[in-house]
Formats: sequence, structure tokens, C-alpha cells
Amino acid sequence: MTMGNSSRKGARAERGLVNWLAENGWAVMRAPASGSATDRDLPDVLFGDGERFVAAEVKSSGEDIIYLDESEVDSLQYFADAFGAEAMAAVRFDLEYGDPAYGADRPGFYFIPLGKLEMTPGDNFRVRKDSAQTQGIREVDL
Amino acid sequence: MTMGNSSRKGARAERGLVNWLAENGWAVMRAPASGSATDRDLPDVLFGDGERFVAAEVKSSGEDIIYLDESEVDSLQYFADAFGAEAMAAVRFDLEYGDPAYGADRPGFYFIPLGKLEMTPGDNFRVRKDSAQTQGIREVDL
Repeated sequence: MTMGNSSRKGARAERGLVNWLAENGWAVMRAPASGSATDRDLPDVLFGDGERFVAAEVKSSGEDIIYLDESEVDSLQYFADAFGAEAMAAVRFDLEYGDPAYGADRPGFYFIPLGKLEMTPGDNFRVRKDSAQTQGIREVDL
Repeated sequence: MTMGNSSRKGARAERGLVNWLAENGWAVMRAPASGSATDRDLPDVLFGDGERFVAAEVKSSGEDIIYLDESEVDSLQYFADAFGAEAMAAVRFDLEYGDPAYGADRPGFYFIPLGKLEMTPGDNFRVRKDSAQTQGIREVDL
């Protein structure tokens, strides 16, 4: 199966996040790429540092809004509650090179607790670039 | 790549364990089948129930001894310590149908904390079927 440009870009962003976390004291597990053994959806990444456990859905976009389906938000919350982890959306928006919001030493993600996501009129969820940057938790601040 | 009979059997046993755990209150993450984003080895499964977190290497065999390499034991301990999980070997030995050690309602695994594995003369590790059955923790007793 061929991956579109945006899927490849998304996979690269996720790898960047996983590598950064692993190099900064977190033990990180990624979900298998395709069907797991069970019907339940798994978080994209699950990581811990001995004190804090985070299950996250990872999304990146060149647009200014990132959407999450109600079903993926529900699945993530379900898994996180059962496991004993915080449930978060990990979002990354494209920024111009040199933008002070990013550093060369970080992958540029913001973490938003699921409870703080904005609901759409259709009962899905979204994160706006400006609110992520002002209210999200930078991966360096986790 | 073709999977040998024993690999297929091992994969089936691991799926059985993952399904059983998921149906019994654990949130379970399996490692991706092939290369992760980092060079670090990942546990085969990582699961939690809000109180207890377990990272495990999963092995099954038709023989009476199951071996683990020093390197996989070290990697598992490293990951588990960083994450904040117990590190265990999850082993399954073939038993005759109807053997009272197994029930129809369980996948037949025993969990051994890494510190209790027997060391081989070559600095690898092994689990004997009889000691697993007498000293291991059945998945139903986790």
C-alpha cells in the first residue's frame, strides 16, 4: 500500500517524537502499525518515566486545525483509564523555519489533555494551532 | 518472509495471552512486530490495570526448558525500570490436553520476575517447566 505524502510526513513526525522521548528519559512503546490482537483501538504511543504514564494519539498537520474523531478520543480515554495513564492528544503544527515556538532540540509537539479538547458541532474534537501553543504542554515540559 | 511452525505457534500463544489479558481488565500494548523507531529493544507486551504495570517478554515452547538471551533480559529490565513497570518473563509450555495445570478458560502462561530466572553457565537465562509451574505466577493470579 502506498503512503501519501501527508501520511509519510505524519509518520516522520511521530518517529521524531518517539525518538525525542526515548532520548529524554521516557520509556516509549508505539502501537503496532496494523491490526492489534484485539478489536480495541490502541493509543499511538504509551510512555512512562517511573512516575508519570501517558497514552497519546499523535497528529500533525500543515493546516491550522487538527481534528480527532469522537471514536478515537473515546478509545484513547478507555485505554488510558484501564491502564492507569493520562490521556492526551499530541499535536504538531507546521511552523516556519526559525519560528521561536520551536527549538532545534525539540520535535515541536504540544500535549493537550483530552478533557481540554474543543468539541465540534458534530461531536468530534479539534485543536487550534493558537490554543495549542498557548495552552498545550510542550513535550519538553512534560 | 515465511514464518516457521514454531514462530506461528509462538505468535498464536502470544495473541492468546494478549486477548485473555484484555478481556480480564488489563489494558495491553503489544510491541510493533518489526523495528521500532529507536534502537532500543521493546518488551513483547506492556500492560496495566491502574495499579500494576508489567513489561514482559513472551515465550512458548514444546520443550521442557525455555531460554532467554542475556541481551533480551537486560533490555527488558532497562525498559521496565525506565517506564516504571515490573519486568517479567511470560512462559508457556505445551501440556497434554486436559492437564489440570491448565484450564479451558486461561491461556496457560506463567510469569516469572526476571530476578528469579535461573542463569545458565553461559550467562543467559532459562526457565524449567516444573519450576515455572511451582514458582511462577499464573496469569489468572497476576
